This record gives sequence, structure tokens and C-alpha cells, in this order.
Amino acid sequence: MKKLYIIKIGGNVIDDPDELENFLLDFSKIEDLKILVHGGGKIANDLAKRLGVSQALINGRRITDAETLKITTMVYAGLINKQVVASLQAKGVNGIGLTGADGNSIVSVKRNITDIDYGFVGDVGSSGVNVEFISLLLSSAITPVFSAITHDDKGQLLNTNADTIASVLAVALSQNYEVQLNYCFEKKGVLKNIDDENSVISSITKTKYKQLLAEGIISKGMIPKLDNAFEAIQKGVKSVMIASSAELINTLNENEHAGTKLIA
Amino acid sequence: MKKLYIIKIGGNVIDDPDELENFLLDFSKIEDLKILVHGGGKIANDLAKRLGVSQALINGRRITDAETLKITTMVYAGLINKQVVASLQAKGVNGIGLTGADGNSIVSVKRNITDIDYGFVGDVGSSGVNVEFISLLLSSAITPVFSAITHDDKGQLLNTNADTIASVLAVALSQNYEVQLNYCFEKKGVLKNIDDENSVISSITKTKYKQLLAEGIISKGMIPKLDNAFEAIQKGVKSVMIASSAELINTLNENEHAGTKLIA
Repeated sequence: MKKLYIIKIGGNVIDDPDELENFLLDFSKIEDLKILVHGGGKIANDLAKRLGVSQALINGRRITDAETLKITTMVYAGLINKQVVASLQAKGVNGIGLTGADGNSIVSVKRNITDIDYGFVGDVGSSGVNVEFISLLLSSAITPVFSAITHDDKGQLLNTNADTIASVLAVALSQNYEVQLNYCFEKKGVLKNIDDENSVISSITKTKYKQLLAEGIISKGMIPKLDNAFEAIQKGVKSVMIASSAELINTLNENEHAGTKLIA
Repeated sequence: MKKLYIIKIGGNVIDDPDELENFLLDFSKIEDLKILVHGGGKIANDLAKRLGVSQALINGRRITDAETLKITTMVYAGLINKQVVASLQAKGVNGIGLTGADGNSIVSVKRNITDIDYGFVGDVGSSGVNVEFISLLLSSAITPVFSAITHDDKGQLLNTNADTIASVLAVALSQNYEVQLNYCFEKKGVLKNIDDENSVISSITKTKYKQLLAEGIISKGMIPKLDNAFEAIQKGVKSVMIASSAELINTLNENEHAGTKLIA
């Protein structure tokens, strides 16, 4: 099977034009097959503020009302996605910007209203991924660039967590490819000592993860991220890398001081 | 050669949700290969107004400054494009939303600064069309949906006239397909008497066009549109249809009272 890198970037890369440019330059140097997934960042919040659209929060969770969905669709699928694709084209990467609606590539399900109505938010599993279409693009030397917008296949666009999109793409495409999922993180990797940026743990197996959890070494905020990563590995993803975007090239070169690699 | 319909809609369809929905339903019924090209409409102007971005005009021509380019990219390539694609998916059409940057599908050239600096506006010819990529999509039963944004292949997105995009796509794809280019127009077609909506001229050949021009029957505003259409025909497009969006299905059924068909 061919190697495929799926790389997710978030606000810490997108919001800084220089960091984004450096990242895209590194990304363009990856010779293996690759997919980019990007989240939103501050631009959507700034636009909402300028438009006087208040960002509803319930119990600290963001609610996507109709106006907010329009804003995220404009910013994620329009502005950011197309600027990234144009920049990649200039670097010799034949990118294509996609939401889940495009080519019916990712179908999600609108989150059920329980105690909270999250609004136009879509939950997605690996069965919602159109592996055939994405494989067609990859085999045509086209690099998919996903924004964090999906659809329900009934005409409704839905906001979807970008980490989850990266993860379900990785699981689904493991059918056809040897997938390494990379999360570009604000820190250099998973740290042994949260106050020491240089205490990156270079690799964690499932067994070692249990041990680190038992020892209380994994910080609370990292636990859901790592749980999800190991779930993806259990479902067929070869490895998950957590590292800073600046270290991307070093992680691909398997530099052992660059980021944290999670493996079975 | 297989038949390919390239259909362009503008503000008069996009700005009216019911008309857009009806149009997309008709569009979804086209069994032959098809491409949709959409312009912008009022939504971008409304957003610019809400954001306090003034729309610069020089000698009555719109100037695309950096802020205006961001707005059109958000509205055309984000909001409108993705809502159209999601709606088509719900109607069983596997649409894919594209700017010229996506898949490097349309490369344009930033308009030269002469007496007027139009800003981020791209001019495009049929040589800028990536026929191979678009043919790959069509042969995979995927329906391209183009917004009126292209790129210069050096990292810059550019605003581009949607009528022109439709026309250069039609010319370029005539290599591989028997293309009918349809312009959805606010009137039923080219009228013999501009005050009589029912005076549609059902077909115009190049010879008849010269005759109509000599007789002063063609209204001044229609002349550039028709000149461009006949130029496309001369360059290989099979026919150009000018009709209202409501008449789309009738035009496809070759109803002689539906719209104006331009032929060699």
C-alpha cells in the first residue's frame, strides 16, 4: 500500500500568515500522497464580531446557529480554503479545496438535540467518507484540502470538528493506504513535563500510554486527543503524529526528537 | 462526442431562493453531462455594505480591491457555491464546487493596469482551462460547479467575469465534447421587440445576426453578449442558448418557443 499523510492544522497555524506560509512550503515538499485538513481560527470570530453576530455558547460549548453557519462556510470553505489552495498551486501542489458536500466526500449527521441544541453541527464517522472519490483524486496526483464543513446529503451544510474530520478520513482511507495522521499542535509534542517544551515523549505505544496514564504524566487536556488517536490506530491507521507545525518536515524524516509518534 | 451542457446563472437566479431552488431542480434533471457556472448577485454587495467596505467604481466599472476580493471569495466560492453543491447532492447530482485554483482548473492573468487599475481581476482565455482535469470529473459522473473566482497560478486569487468563464470553458471543452452553452437570462431570450416578452427570436445564425444588426433589431445591450456567443461558436462550441432560467427544461427539449438558440 502507498503511504498517505493526512495533516491537520488549526488556528495556531492559520491565524499567523507567516507560519501558514512556512507550513505550506514544508507541506509542498512531501513527496508521498497527502491530504490537508484545516480548521477555522480567529478569522470567523472576527467576521462574526464585525457583523454583530453574537457567538452563542451553552455550558461553554459553541452553538452553530444559521448565521454562524453562513459565516463559517464563508470563512472556512471560501476564504481560508481557497487561499490555501492558491498558495499550494504556486508551490507546485495541485490542491483541490473541498467541503464534505463536494464530490459527496464526507456525509455527516446533524447532532441530536438532547439537553443542548448545538445547531448546525454534524457528527461524522468513517463510514461517511467517500473513499472511492478521494482515492480517485489521490491517484490523479491531486491533493485534497478539506475545510471543516460537511453536509447531511439532504441539502444541509454542517459545521464539523476538524480533528474528527482528519481522524475519520485517516480511518476510512486505511483501506487503501498506509496512513500517517499528523496533528499540528501548539506544543512540540506530548510533554513529560508540561512546563518543559523539550520534554517531548518521542513515541507512545498503547501499553506505554496506559502506563503514562497510571503515572499521571499525561495532562488532562491531552487525554481525549490521545484516546481518539489510539482509537484511530485500533481501526487501521498506521501511526498518529502529534507535533508543532514547524517540526513537520523533521517528523516526516523520522527525527526522534521531533514530536510524539503514537503507534499500536 | 458526448453532449455537454454548460449553464451560467447570475444574480437574477441566485438572489431569489425559490427561483434558485426551481432552477437547481430543473438542472438536476439533465441527464447529459453538465457544468454549472454561477456569478455573485446581491449577497456580496450586501456583505460589503454590512462590513462598511465601499465598492470602488471608476468610470462606472467595479474595482476589486483586496477587501472586495476577500468578500467575493467568501460569498461566491464559500457561501453560494457550497449551498448550491449541497442542494444538488440532495437532488442526486454529485456536484463539486470549484474555483479556478481547485485542481488548477482555470488559470487567469491579472488585468494590466492601463488608464484604470481594476485591482484583483483576472482575464481568462480558453488556453487557461485544464481540460484534462475537468474531463476526469465529468467521466467520473461528477458535475463541476464553478464560482467566478480564478487564480494566476502564482498564489493570487482573482475575480473573473462569470459569463467569460462559461464561454472559455465551452470553447476549451469543445475539444472533447459537443457543447451547448446556456446563458440564463432575465428575459425569455433575444427579443424582436424589446417591449414584448413574447417576441423571442427562436434561432439566429451568423448570417441572420448580421441581418438583424443591419435592421437595428438587436438592442445595444445585447450586442456584446451575442458577439461573444458567436465567437464561441466560431471556436467550436456547437450552440449557445439564451433563455430565462424558468425555460431551461423547455430549451433542452428543443421547444422552439423557449429561448433563442445561436448556431453557426
